[in-house]
Formats: sequence, structure tokens, C-alpha cells
Amino acid sequence: MNTFPAQILLHILCFLGLSFSYLHPLDPLEPSEISAIRNIIKSYLLGSSDSPFGFHYVGLDEPDKLTVLSWQSDPSSHPLPPRRAFVILRAGGQTHELYIDISNNSIASHSIHLGNGYPMVNLEEQNAVTLLPFSYSPFVESVKKRGVELREVLCTTNSVGWYAERVYDGRRVLKLQCFVAGGTVNVYMRPLEGITILVDLEAMEIVEYKDRFVVPVPVAAGTDYRASTQIPPYGPRGNRVVVAQPDGKGFTIQGNLVRWANWEFHVGFDARAGLVISLASISNEENSSYHSVLYKGFVSELFVPYMDPSEEWYFKTFFDNGEYGFGPYSSSLKPMIDCPTNAEYMDGYYANGDGSPVRIPNVFCIFERYAGDTSWRHTEIMLPEMITEAREEVSLVVRTVTTSGNYDYVFDWEFKTSGSIKVLAGFTGLLQIRATDYTKFYQIIDEQHGELVAPNTIGVYHDHYVTYHLDLDVAGPVNSFVKASLHTVRSQDETTPRKSYWTVIKETAKTEADGRVKLSTEPPAELLVVNPGVKTKLGNTVGYRLISRGAAATSLLTDDDYPQIRAGYSKKQLWVTPYNKSEKWVAGLYTDQSHGEDNLAAWSMRNRPIENTDIVLWYTMGIHHIPSQEDFPLMPMLTCDFELRPFNFFERNPLINTKPFNNGYWAN
Amino acid sequence: MNTFPAQILLHILCFLGLSFSYLHPLDPLEPSEISAIRNIIKSYLLGSSDSPFGFHYVGLDEPDKLTVLSWQSDPSSHPLPPRRAFVILRAGGQTHELYIDISNNSIASHSIHLGNGYPMVNLEEQNAVTLLPFSYSPFVESVKKRGVELREVLCTTNSVGWYAERVYDGRRVLKLQCFVAGGTVNVYMRPLEGITILVDLEAMEIVEYKDRFVVPVPVAAGTDYRASTQIPPYGPRGNRVVVAQPDGKGFTIQGNLVRWANWEFHVGFDARAGLVISLASISNEENSSYHSVLYKGFVSELFVPYMDPSEEWYFKTFFDNGEYGFGPYSSSLKPMIDCPTNAEYMDGYYANGDGSPVRIPNVFCIFERYAGDTSWRHTEIMLPEMITEAREEVSLVVRTVTTSGNYDYVFDWEFKTSGSIKVLAGFTGLLQIRATDYTKFYQIIDEQHGELVAPNTIGVYHDHYVTYHLDLDVAGPVNSFVKASLHTVRSQDETTPRKSYWTVIKETAKTEADGRVKLSTEPPAELLVVNPGVKTKLGNTVGYRLISRGAAATSLLTDDDYPQIRAGYSKKQLWVTPYNKSEKWVAGLYTDQSHGEDNLAAWSMRNRPIENTDIVLWYTMGIHHIPSQEDFPLMPMLTCDFELRPFNFFERNPLINTKPFNNGYWAN
Repeated sequence: MNTFPAQILLHILCFLGLSFSYLHPLDPLEPSEISAIRNIIKSYLLGSSDSPFGFHYVGLDEPDKLTVLSWQSDPSSHPLPPRRAFVILRAGGQTHELYIDISNNSIASHSIHLGNGYPMVNLEEQNAVTLLPFSYSPFVESVKKRGVELREVLCTTNSVGWYAERVYDGRRVLKLQCFVAGGTVNVYMRPLEGITILVDLEAMEIVEYKDRFVVPVPVAAGTDYRASTQIPPYGPRGNRVVVAQPDGKGFTIQGNLVRWANWEFHVGFDARAGLVISLASISNEENSSYHSVLYKGFVSELFVPYMDPSEEWYFKTFFDNGEYGFGPYSSSLKPMIDCPTNAEYMDGYYANGDGSPVRIPNVFCIFERYAGDTSWRHTEIMLPEMITEAREEVSLVVRTVTTSGNYDYVFDWEFKTSGSIKVLAGFTGLLQIRATDYTKFYQIIDEQHGELVAPNTIGVYHDHYVTYHLDLDVAGPVNSFVKASLHTVRSQDETTPRKSYWTVIKETAKTEADGRVKLSTEPPAELLVVNPGVKTKLGNTVGYRLISRGAAATSLLTDDDYPQIRAGYSKKQLWVTPYNKSEKWVAGLYTDQSHGEDNLAAWSMRNRPIENTDIVLWYTMGIHHIPSQEDFPLMPMLTCDFELRPFNFFERNPLINTKPFNNGYWAN
Repeated sequence: MNTFPAQILLHILCFLGLSFSYLHPLDPLEPSEISAIRNIIKSYLLGSSDSPFGFHYVGLDEPDKLTVLSWQSDPSSHPLPPRRAFVILRAGGQTHELYIDISNNSIASHSIHLGNGYPMVNLEEQNAVTLLPFSYSPFVESVKKRGVELREVLCTTNSVGWYAERVYDGRRVLKLQCFVAGGTVNVYMRPLEGITILVDLEAMEIVEYKDRFVVPVPVAAGTDYRASTQIPPYGPRGNRVVVAQPDGKGFTIQGNLVRWANWEFHVGFDARAGLVISLASISNEENSSYHSVLYKGFVSELFVPYMDPSEEWYFKTFFDNGEYGFGPYSSSLKPMIDCPTNAEYMDGYYANGDGSPVRIPNVFCIFERYAGDTSWRHTEIMLPEMITEAREEVSLVVRTVTTSGNYDYVFDWEFKTSGSIKVLAGFTGLLQIRATDYTKFYQIIDEQHGELVAPNTIGVYHDHYVTYHLDLDVAGPVNSFVKASLHTVRSQDETTPRKSYWTVIKETAKTEADGRVKLSTEPPAELLVVNPGVKTKLGNTVGYRLISRGAAATSLLTDDDYPQIRAGYSKKQLWVTPYNKSEKWVAGLYTDQSHGEDNLAAWSMRNRPIENTDIVLWYTMGIHHIPSQEDFPLMPMLTCDFELRPFNFFERNPLINTKPFNNGYWAN
């Protein structure tokens, strides 16, 4: 990619008289744009209808990929493509899809979604429905029966999923779960068990209420995690380590474009996906040109099914991205705690239920990471002079944190000078707790669907499936997926005493069926994305490897179970599809109460060609979580990651002629 | 564990009039002890024989585990156990095993090893045999034929393995591989291909010589990795990040005992294993007592089989630990490059072939690691005050680096305040290269057993299997191994619309057959080591989990292939055995030219009971390596790790009441 001519672009923008300041076609919507969209829609819809309406998604409708790529190839001779937004509204009991031409102040299209599923719920409607129980006398009675003060109760929402046996006649509904806040901020540890409350989001009323049994509310003592409430003896810690950068930061942020070492990429914020990495490109050894690696990468879904089939729990099979959206739940990162002292921060904006822009300060942090490691080393003892040569490893991390109710997810994209991208998910926060009569392990006589982690407290079994949308463009958009399988060969050659060895059989996936990979099956394989049209000087096809590092759990639900139908992709770690702009959300655009017709497994059934074309990888990291007492009252971080690593992408190790930091000859 | 009364012990030592300064029964042999051993043996053996002899192993013969544990339980009332050493010599064509009583200046036992296999080769004999070709006229002729100057040639040794079809009549032999050093320090990239040289280590002569074909020696250009030889444009790097500890280091080193935060452990150096972690214990939440976690952990073997069955390559199936030993190949770590600025260093000593002590300065580094991450966090949006609470993650790393000829292995043991131990292996250094006629990929028409990574340069397919000996003592030595398997259950209950869920079936391994685990097989399972005799207050059995993070390759060789017979353990990632002091080396004590009778697979065939007893885990991380151009001329680091993580070991998250570093209330 060439240098970005910001001056020229700003000049064009001024000439056109626009008040928006975006610099790049993939820049997320600015607050002024969100406000403009709201105004366009308000005047349009208020003219045609007087039913109340709510905003459920407002985001950039990205220009076509070819438009972006051609703009990127020479920004100075292409105008910025027109800005369009995609908006999902609920009005009159229907889901409306609108494409807005922001520059023209106009609505480009308006249609009604007629299929199954609903858009993400918004915060405002959730806040409203969580207040309903407090004026609902059966609930007040239930609280009283449990000896709890109503003023200490708080409720939160749960998506209901889809079960053919429990249809809600086309109504958008949620279930509420309530907790006792008294004595701790860790309300998730104190559920009011036995109660199910079904609320209708359009009618704003409780439509079903059950109070099946009473068990004790677990005590507050020992659950608060705030530093201010702790008493000695304090927990263990090392001495603090602070990082400093005597030469300053090594990266620049221009608008949403980040440049560091040999990398350049765009960072965007989306109300549903949260962090979106786009157009990640890396320069060749001569630093003379950039080569594309990743057109787009983001977390497409986070599926968290719980394993308790009881009335109060069976429906807890969350799709955190599609049902709630990562945007509004992205945390404002705490400087010097969530990220190190040398981090820079960026803000994010999303539209609330009213369509107004909401700012999340410090939604991303970006920092150079040094953990004391080397990027390569060698000690040579064969030579009389005994050489040791090594280079320090400094990488660049982009971090965001999404708190999906109880769970906190840390999402890192770590760019390495070697060309690797390490993609990490960290799991912390609070367990979903089921209250129980049991206070000791030996009392338990029946199936608990979880582990006793504190008195009266079951940490329920569950899974986490983090699915990444990885639109790799290895040295350009036209790529193929290659499985390089390792096969044992029995030696036929009588001259060797070796009886066996393995060799590699590289198979290029022709259609989507060839691109579905379950990692645990034999034979083992390297997973490669190659560009068949680009060769190294040596004649090897350029490529990138996807390296799994465990966290390879796949769903254990039966194929006919409803959450499994909705997350049909969750039994294989990797799927490959041809690029299709509309296929962004692995569990479908309308995930809430979805029936599974619009998800990756459904798209992939068409078995489209994926050879020598623009392809997208969908990679899922999965964890089965059996809770332990250490997860109470708040879980220590568990991390997992995968790596995208160059494979014949460079002519040689691109770091071999990198200067060391502390060697004599690098004198200052 | 109680506080270590160093003063009292020093007093005892002085009283006994010993000149040795060890403080702990597991302290490695000091140089003065190594010298004393040499003197004892010299006077003993010179009296009984006048054949030359060489030292192949000199190490601490550790006191019995029960002795160590009872000493540890109350060091002030137990004297330090007597110091004994275990020594392996070669003399008169035989392998001698000697137990030395250092305190008494006496030999406690002397026996001859009569089985198959030989001890580790020592550096001195390797240095001697690598000189033999230079006065061997067929070799001089071969070099001349290749147009290479003899003075630029260097040779290195390869173990020969064991193949029934190629027996050497009980001779200790090695094969030599020679390289051209001219124009680069990266000699491994310039092999003299086609030549095989078999040398007899006792006779010190070449006993077999083959020169089968001539291919070009790959050029030197572009292979040197020294900073001083690089020319612009330089490779990419971020700006340097330096770490500082304003409150100083958080750990103390007393002799070989390290204390940090809630951890205490002993660090030892062994000529074969390199780094040995012993007696790792962690304090409970009240900091009132230590609880044992790991009696001993070290890399027991590093098996690296290559996949080229040709005459020049078939035998390359290295057991780096057993054939060469990690000790002499441990790198002297470069401060501020191999380890960060805040690291402390320790030296190591081993006995050379003459029995004299050799010092390796900076063989370990120990540092507090902060990579910008949190050990836990939560943002609570349910409460009006919107809480975000988090703690910075600082851990303690013990690092060593072993360079097994071409490959450099970084071994980290990372202790976390959460109770986790993350065990990491990093792979870097130089490929084993086979020279070839080919200079371009498209020329290749036959099976290459590797990838073209540079002109005339094949990076040969190979595997790495790093096997850890993990003598876990979870809250004491009496443990059991539990597989907590996840099984799908079809809901029978008509009241739930959920059709399925998973539940956990915990099976305690009765005998060794139950303790063999191949990770990729269904059903998935958590791997637990529990102490059946110790319960939490809640009644859960205390335990630790072993979490794999990928690098789960297992051997693809056929069961009847000789290297596979010798590494019979390499088809399953995990084995569990009852503790047996003599079972330290997974491929057997005498690995060089071993026949596989004395290895983990053989021991485990006895199918001993492993329930409710002292058990040892053997865990193998495996990697299949298909080289790429990026691995030339020196490989970027590839890391893999596994985690030992508490599971109901603590009553709750032990970090919940840990003070943050940068919060207001932690004011200075």
C-alpha cells in the first residue's frame, strides 16, 4: 500500500463541503454521522408511521471490497467512496432494514425482514423490561417468600433461544433472571433461583411467570471483588513491573490507520462486532511495498451454551454477538490496568435505542508489547569464537474487552514483525451460578449439571465458542485453501533400514465441503491459505498457516438439539467459504430466536467453489468449562490463542537483518 | 513448607567441618564436589586399571524422596542428608556406574552396565572424532572433488540410533556430518552432502566411509545472522520497550531456593536434564503454610526424528537429552537480550570428559514478567455505579536455553500467583538442511522429504517431541489421576425442550493402562491430578489440571520402526506411572544406541497400580515441522506451552483480595 495522502483527501472533503472528517472508506461511523442518520430516519419514518420505533443496529455499510481495494491501491486518484450506513429498526412489530446514503441525506432502500429471528436487543428496552417485575405482584410475593428485600433485587435479561416446543407466536421475548445486590457488588453470585419471567419486548409486559421452588440465596460474604472491600491478609502479587519506551512509541495512528514496524492496518469499531481489523498489510524485506494479509478479521460470534436442561436453565445458550452485540458491552479500558502504561487509546461510538450516538471512551488500546522474549536466537559452538546472536521480541497489540453480562472477554490482535498475527481470547469475569440447597460436596446425590464452587452455589457446566471471521487476502484477494496432510509412508526402499517416515500431501480445497476441518481427526494437517498466482523467487506459492493452539473444543450437543441447529458450525473448528459481503455473522444476521436457516452451516451446504477465488476462513476456538472453586467469586484469566503465520510469504526470515536493541553497535 | 533456617544449617555444616556450601538436599553438585568426585574416582580406578576412562555423567544422586520430604517438613531438626553422586564412566570398553559418597570420600558402589545402550557422548570425544576426517585421505579427496577448501570444512556429530540391520558389534559409534564454514558463521546451511562417515568412539577411528554423490554446497550469501554483517535496508522492529521495577525485585534467591509472591521452589542444574524445578509449593490464602504442587519437573527427553529415509539421513532421529545431554549445550544467556533487564542469573556446573568442573555462566535467568495483561477483571453494568475492577498480571519466569547443535530450545517455567504453572518451549535456531541440485520449486520431480527453502537447500521434514517428567505432589505425594470425561446426554425429561447436554464422568485411573491418554480421541476430558485424602472446606477433592494448548502432535512412524521402538511413548501425549526413583529418563538411562527395552512404554507395560499413591505424569508436546522459506537462514521463534492449573486446590480464587498496583488506595 502506498503512503496515505491525508492532505489531498481532506482537501477533497472541504471542497465538497462535508462536515464529516473520516479519512478512510472503512472508518466507522462518526457521532455526527450517527446523528445525521437518526435525523434522516426520524423525518422519514415519522412521516409514514406514528408507531414508536427503536434502533437495533446502526453501522457502516462498507463499500464493495473491489471499490475499497481500488481506492487503497491509489488513494490520491480515487475519491473516497460515498458513505452509506446500514440500519436495523423495530417498528410496528416488524424488523426494518434501511440503507442510508449519508452524503445525500437520503434513504437508499427500505425493506422488511420477513424471516425468522430478530435483531440484537438494545440496552434501553432491556433496561425497561428489567423494571417490570418490581410492579408485578407474583414476583413481589416470590421475593418476600425468600426473605429478601425488594429494593436489593436487580434483574438482568436472558435471550430465550428457539425451541419448537416453546413458540412465542412471533413475539420478541426475553427471560429475566433476578439477583440480590445487598452486601456485595457481585450480584451474579446471588441468584433468586426457581423463578422464570418471560417478558414481551414490544408489549413491554410480563407474559409468563413461574416460581417453581425456593432454595437459599447464596450469601454475600466473600464475593465482593473491589479492592476497597478487601481485608488482610491480602492476596499474593509480585512486585510491579512498569514498561518504558526510551525512544518513544514505535507506532503511529492516523485516523483509524495504524502503522508500526512492517505492519499497516485499519482499526474499526462496530456496534455488533466490536473491534474490526481491516486491510492488514505487511511490507516486504526491502520496505518498498506492502502486501495484503488480512482484508478483515473480527469476532463473528460467541456462542455460550449452558448444560442444565431444567426449566430455569435450558434456554441459556447465548449468542453474545448476535443477540446482544459486543458494541454496547465493550468496556472502557482502565489505563495502566487493562493495558500497560505505554498504551494509546481510541474511542468507539454506537447508536443507542433512540439512534443517538454514545461514546465509549478507551474502547481499544494499542501498545508495543515486550514480555522479555526473543524473536529468534542461536548459539553456535561449532566455531571457535562461540557466537550467540539473538533479537528481542517486541510486538504490537490491539486490545478490546467485551463484558457480556457476567463474563469478561479480552480480545487481542498481536502483530509480530515476523509476519505472524497472534489472535488471543481471554476469559475472566463471573460464573453463571445456580443456587442450590447443598453446602457440602458430600450432600449431593442427584445430577447437578455443574460443580459446587461455594456453599449453595453451583457453577454450571458450559462451553465458549469464539468464532472469528478471517477474510485472508494473502498477497491479494484470490486465494485457495490447502490442507497439507501428513501421511505415514512405509519405506519400500530396501537400501534403508528405516521402516517409515511421513510425507506431505497438499490438497487444494475445491468446494466448501473440502474446507470443513475438524482438527482432532487424522491425518494431522497444516492449514494453509495460499495465493496460487503469486510465487516466491524460489517458485514456492506464497501462503499463510493457521496454527491452532488448543482450545479446540467442539460442540457436544446432539445435531437435532435446537441450540445446535442454530450454531450448526460449532462441530468443526474451521470452515472456508467464498467471499460474500452479506455473510458476516456466523449464526446469521438475525440471531435472536433464530431457527438456523441463515448461518454458516446453511450457507456452506451450497458447496460453492472456493478454489482460486476470494475466500473467507471461519475459525472457532472452543472451551468446555467445568468450574472449580478457583472460579469463585471471580475467575482467574484463562487465555487461548491461534496464530496466522507466514508460510513462504517472505523470501526468507524477514527478521534476520533486524538490528538488536541493546547491542554495542546500536549505540545510543 | 516452613521458613528455611539457613543460619542453623550453616552452623551444622561448619560444625561438621565440611568445605561444601550447599544448603538444600537437592542443590546440584558444586564445583568443589565435582572435583572431589573426580579425585575419588581417579585414585580408585587408576589403582585397578590403567585403561583410559572418560566421564559421561556426574550428577547428584538425590536422597530418597521421603528423606527430602521429611527434611523439608522441619529442616531445623533434621541434618542435611549425606551427599551422594551418581557417575557414569566409560573405561575398558564398558559402561561403569558408580555411586560416590562425597562426605566420606568413598565409593559406595561400582557396577558395570551390561544391557544395550550407551551413556551420553561427551564433548571431548566429539571434538576428537570430528578431527579424524581431516587426515583421512578419502575425505580429503571428497572435499577436493567438491571444489571446497579443506581449511573451511567443519564436522559435527550425529548419533546413529539403532537399526537391527546395521549393527556395530557393540561398538560406540557416531556419524559425522561436515559443513563449509567459508563466508558465513551459519555453517549448518552449507552441508557437504552425499558423504557418510562412521567413527568408533573408543578406537577413535573412522570405520566406514561413503561418498555416494555430489551436489552443490549451498552458497554462503544471505545466511549470516550476525548483526555486524547485515546491510541496509534493515529488518523491521518496534521501538524498544524496557522494563523497570520501581519497588525492586519481588523475589529472593537463597542458594537455589527461590521465593516469590505465594511460590517457593528449588532450581537445580543437571548435566543431562539442564533445568530442574523441585519442591514447588504455594502458600494458602492466609499465607500461613505452603502446600506442595510439584515435587520435580524437568525435560526428560527431546526426540527429533527426521523423515528422510536415505542413506545419509535415515539415522537422524535424535534424542537430544539422552544422547547428548542438555547440560553442556545450555547457553550462557545474554543479559538484556535472552532475558529482560530486570532478570537475575544463576550459573551451572557440569563435569567434562575428564571429570573436571565446567562453569556455564548465566545458565538460568529468573525474572518477573509483565506483558501488559490482567490476571482477572470485571466490568459490572448492572449496578448504577458501573464498576470496573482488574488486577495486573505479574508472573515469575525461570528460563534456560539449550542449543542442541543447530536447534535452540527456550524452556520457561512461569509461575503465576493464581497457582498456575505455565510450561513453555520455544523453538528457534537453524534447520537441518539437505543440499540438493534444485534451485527452483518447479524443477523438483521426485520425493524430497522436505521443502525447498533456498536455492540448493531442502529443509527436511521432522518432528519435535518434548517430554516433561512431572512428579506432581498435589497437597502431598499421595495422588490419583482422574479423567473427567465429557459425555453427551440425550435429555429423557419430557419437561425440557432441550434435547441434549453434556455431563462429566470422573474416572480415577487404577493402573498405568488407564493413565495413557491420546488427546485427540473422544470423548474430550479434563486431565486432573487429585489428592484423594485432602478436601476443601466445601468437600471437593483438591487437584490440579493439565491443560494442553495444542502442540499435540504424536509420532506418525510405524510401530515396528526402530526410532519408534526407542521412543515408544511418543504416540500418546500423556502417561502416568507410579513414582520410581530410577525412572527419570523417558527413553531410558542409556539412550544412545538404545533398543527400547528401558523406556516409559516398557515400564508402563507392567501396568502397575497408580491409584492413591505417589504418581508421575509424563507429558509430551509435539510439533510436526514442515519448513518454509521463513525458516531460512534462521527460524523465527515458535512457542508452545501447557498449563498446570489449580482445580479445587484453593478455597476460592486466591487473587481476589490482591491489591492492585496502580489504584489510588495503593498510594505510593
